[in-house]
Amino acid sequence: MFFIILYMDFKVTILGSNSALPTNLRSTTAQAVQHNNEIFLIDCGEGTQLQLRRMNFSFPKINHIFISHLHGDHYYGIFGLLTSFSLMGRKQDLHLYAHSNLKEILDVNFKYSGELSYKIIFHNLSNHKERKILDLKHIEVYSFPLKHRIQTCGFLFKEKDKERNINPQMIRLYELTHTDVRSIKMGNDYIDSDNKVVANERFMLPEKPKRSYAFCSDTAYFEKMVDTIKGVDLLYHEATFIEKDKARAKETFHSTAMQAAKIAELTETKKLIIGHFSSRYPNPKILEKEALTVFANTQAVNDGDVFEI
Amino acid sequence: MFFIILYMDFKVTILGSNSALPTNLRSTTAQAVQHNNEIFLIDCGEGTQLQLRRMNFSFPKINHIFISHLHGDHYYGIFGLLTSFSLMGRKQDLHLYAHSNLKEILDVNFKYSGELSYKIIFHNLSNHKERKILDLKHIEVYSFPLKHRIQTCGFLFKEKDKERNINPQMIRLYELTHTDVRSIKMGNDYIDSDNKVVANERFMLPEKPKRSYAFCSDTAYFEKMVDTIKGVDLLYHEATFIEKDKARAKETFHSTAMQAAKIAELTETKKLIIGHFSSRYPNPKILEKEALTVFANTQAVNDGDVFEI
Repeated sequence: MFFIILYMDFKVTILGSNSALPTNLRSTTAQAVQHNNEIFLIDCGEGTQLQLRRMNFSFPKINHIFISHLHGDHYYGIFGLLTSFSLMGRKQDLHLYAHSNLKEILDVNFKYSGELSYKIIFHNLSNHKERKILDLKHIEVYSFPLKHRIQTCGFLFKEKDKERNINPQMIRLYELTHTDVRSIKMGNDYIDSDNKVVANERFMLPEKPKRSYAFCSDTAYFEKMVDTIKGVDLLYHEATFIEKDKARAKETFHSTAMQAAKIAELTETKKLIIGHFSSRYPNPKILEKEALTVFANTQAVNDGDVFEI
Repeated sequence: MFFIILYMDFKVTILGSNSALPTNLRSTTAQAVQHNNEIFLIDCGEGTQLQLRRMNFSFPKINHIFISHLHGDHYYGIFGLLTSFSLMGRKQDLHLYAHSNLKEILDVNFKYSGELSYKIIFHNLSNHKERKILDLKHIEVYSFPLKHRIQTCGFLFKEKDKERNINPQMIRLYELTHTDVRSIKMGNDYIDSDNKVVANERFMLPEKPKRSYAFCSDTAYFEKMVDTIKGVDLLYHEATFIEKDKARAKETFHSTAMQAAKIAELTETKKLIIGHFSSRYPNPKILEKEALTVFANTQAVNDGDVFEI
């Protein structure tokens, strides 16, 4: 009899990390968040389906796609990915979370390029407030406003309160039956064969920490997001520019690497990852270096990087 | 004084050669036709801008894009390419030749993802007849109907009657002036210093052959196209399936490699290139082998292949 639940996988894979244009080294924005057996896709720049394929992701495991905003470098891969799902015979529903304008764009497109083999359930993010947009058994996802030229959402992935597990040694010691286990899991104390009460707490393994991940792209420096994402384990924040180009960052509603690091510091995250780099910097280490002066645990991402949470 | 005009470059580069889905080895359909100093783009599957970049094509030299039909594997890269032109500051007009439904798709897309820095001049190919769609100084382009599930065009690139060049040796021999050369080029005979008439024809170099290229994708076996493309120097014809899967080819309005070869034979082309392979065949040599039984000069293309005409 096994009552042990394995510690769930929770990791982020960078599928694309360039801003504006794809290059030979970096695709435009897309990330795969894996939790337990689900793959959540955040943003979908051109060529995302190929990046998913290169990194051996299973297409049928993707049931939820989140699009932060409608600049092309964040969604031009959605046409191909949705079509490929269909060509591969997908039957199960796909949940798409985005501004309602994307629905209009996709409707016109698929009117001409052909019907899909599955149903898209569209979740409208036009109403621009912090709110829970997905609630699964083990994880929930929130969207929250960022500050960009057009309406843009950040996404927060939070593990839920977990059912605490019973210590398997206690199960053996008291020779617990299925009925006993169910009762203890419901919070009841246990009466042993000598009619002695054993406190419920004694049977339980310690609670596992709830992990979280925040995705913040694209955005100008915007402290308001900090309340929402306070204490996340891993924070992705865009860092399009270096400090020298701060004026350009402000003008285009993007952030500098140091601004991203400042948000990380205020958020008290464990680790900051930065991306969405402007092609003007041949080596993103320059952005990482600047961020490190403000926040110690910072990493400039590359396509293919995987971050365990 | 130089009157020699160099023999113009005329070549086709394969940017993508897979059907339906892109793979790690093959992008979906796109080709670059170079003539003289112009680059014509035919079809634009997802990732075409990256293929163009990898193969060092100059984006500003692309002024004419031809889209054969509105299945995603032939146009999903157009969003990114048109946007990248704009991000790179393009000012000159871009000519886009496609079914009018593409205009509707692009209009909705760019309504939300931002205005372009240049003007798109849309040439509507909905009227499905053979006709000249582009007439430049040195080359003309025709569209003609293929037989597919939705309306699909083939494209024929034909060099135009060339201005015949004057033999530079004759220029030296008669010490011709600019005015003399202009007169001879207009077809006049020449009166030499002894008042003797020298026939116009004696000054002229032999006429250069007019070269041509036909692009035929996607299509079922369709003999009607042969009249239009008779005698082309290079023929691209789709070959999605092998003979064993002929029923599937018929059902999906695609061709087998042997059917492509039969069209090549009837067309009396010098060389047949085949592409748009189904992913079910791990090695397209099997398609080439079948085509070779019907038409000797056949080649199965790979992404990156260049064919001089």
